[in-house]
Amino acid sequence: MKVIRTVSEMQALSRSWARQGTVIGLVPTMGFLHEGHLSLVDTARERCGAVVVSIFVNPMQFGPKEDFNAYPRNEKQDLELLEARGTDVVFIPQLDEMYPKGFETRVELTRLPNHLCGLRREGHFRGVTTVVLKLFAAVLPNIAVFGEKDYQQLLVIQRMVRDLNLPIEVVAAPTVREPDGLAMSSRNSYLSPEERTMASCVFQALQRARQMANGGVVDTIMLRRAMTEIIEQAGAQVDYVAVVDPDTLEELLLVKERAHAAVAAFVGRTRLIDNIRLKG
Amino acid sequence: MKVIRTVSEMQALSRSWARQGTVIGLVPTMGFLHEGHLSLVDTARERCGAVVVSIFVNPMQFGPKEDFNAYPRNEKQDLELLEARGTDVVFIPQLDEMYPKGFETRVELTRLPNHLCGLRREGHFRGVTTVVLKLFAAVLPNIAVFGEKDYQQLLVIQRMVRDLNLPIEVVAAPTVREPDGLAMSSRNSYLSPEERTMASCVFQALQRARQMANGGVVDTIMLRRAMTEIIEQAGAQVDYVAVVDPDTLEELLLVKERAHAAVAAFVGRTRLIDNIRLKG
Repeated sequence: MKVIRTVSEMQALSRSWARQGTVIGLVPTMGFLHEGHLSLVDTARERCGAVVVSIFVNPMQFGPKEDFNAYPRNEKQDLELLEARGTDVVFIPQLDEMYPKGFETRVELTRLPNHLCGLRREGHFRGVTTVVLKLFAAVLPNIAVFGEKDYQQLLVIQRMVRDLNLPIEVVAAPTVREPDGLAMSSRNSYLSPEERTMASCVFQALQRARQMANGGVVDTIMLRRAMTEIIEQAGAQVDYVAVVDPDTLEELLLVKERAHAAVAAFVGRTRLIDNIRLKG
Repeated sequence: MKVIRTVSEMQALSRSWARQGTVIGLVPTMGFLHEGHLSLVDTARERCGAVVVSIFVNPMQFGPKEDFNAYPRNEKQDLELLEARGTDVVFIPQLDEMYPKGFETRVELTRLPNHLCGLRREGHFRGVTTVVLKLFAAVLPNIAVFGEKDYQQLLVIQRMVRDLNLPIEVVAAPTVREPDGLAMSSRNSYLSPEERTMASCVFQALQRARQMANGGVVDTIMLRRAMTEIIEQAGAQVDYVAVVDPDTLEELLLVKERAHAAVAAFVGRTRLIDNIRLKG
């Protein structure tokens, strides 16, 4: 396994792979890897001759009051986990090459970010689309794997790739959960032992909404009320609970054949998100 | 010479070139080609094993009151000119593939567009950067050639390429002029015979500013006044006359070692632009 820290070296290697006809897979991450990330690596490994995992904590996608500085980092452990999982290259770009003096280019979407997390995190998705385009340009992948846990991010990236004609297939990989249902996330490391116990309420709320929908409840006000109750009774705080169209993320009044429930909640000071397909 | 009208066919061909190690050059145009465009093709031809010229009149870079519908088009003549000049592929993407239903992605710069033409043409450079990124993704060039006549566009593209780590070298090609100095432009075809005679005032104004600067005039108010006089005495209307830093496009009070003069003028209803390096 090779560690590459400059864009030019990464591009040179990717171009030599492309000349050999090697299919290149990219798994973009912010590091502090867990089994969720590693399942994305497995997905890339199955499909690609060369697997690149990028590690970059991207300041542009954090708001001024968010946790950029506190975000957990452990490069040594990340490299061990990736080596064990059969990664070919770990691409760790440096901040001053990603955002050089005079940097002024943004990639942004005009509609999909105006829902869910995008409404609570001003500029977040602009930061995501900009950095992901830069990672795509550096790694030149044929396939890029993103987790369904960050469902809005997945849709935003899929839309960007389609809109910009990028020659990349975006692959979605299912959310990996702890035994009690909590979606794996680097931010789970912020939780105290009591908060960790409390945090399972997020998935419980989503499961309850799914049971209700499968049981015939179509009024999304009732689903949202039920989710809110479960979260608040556990002692967490709702940031949003929503039932949305899974393509446009527009809120639904009535559950349709295709509908998604999404939650963001504060467990203590830690903001957790999760989502679930309501039917089928 | 091959004509390609779909992104997927273009990408497949570019990828097969890349596998052979062929250097790919792209000349993006809006068609209605003249000797200015063809000199860009010559520049690409000298440097590249495969030369692609794109023709796409991009609605996103025209304002609502601008000349998108009137913009001149002549595909048959363009193809003849390009074949004679040794083009390998003419890429003519279709509107519904470039801007499909639900399109919502924008690429934009936050500083360079806030000068010169960018101030007069709301959203113009957002349209340029977005479409050029799409053309880059479709053609996957190693080198892209742009004319110095659209100087602000050239800077904007160079900045975008650097900021996004695109693995593309942007090559600038000098402005090609008519015998009386008028910069070649597809929009010159709008001019009546009298307007065509009048239009040489734009370059005359720039030349006068250069003579003055080389003669020791450093006060840019005097240079701008002289340029304005020449344009107005010819019967044209100034949209802007400016003396700017050639990297940031910020207006200068005093001429520096590196300074650029830029003009936009209406000759009748036709808006013409041109620019010149003031010193050296």
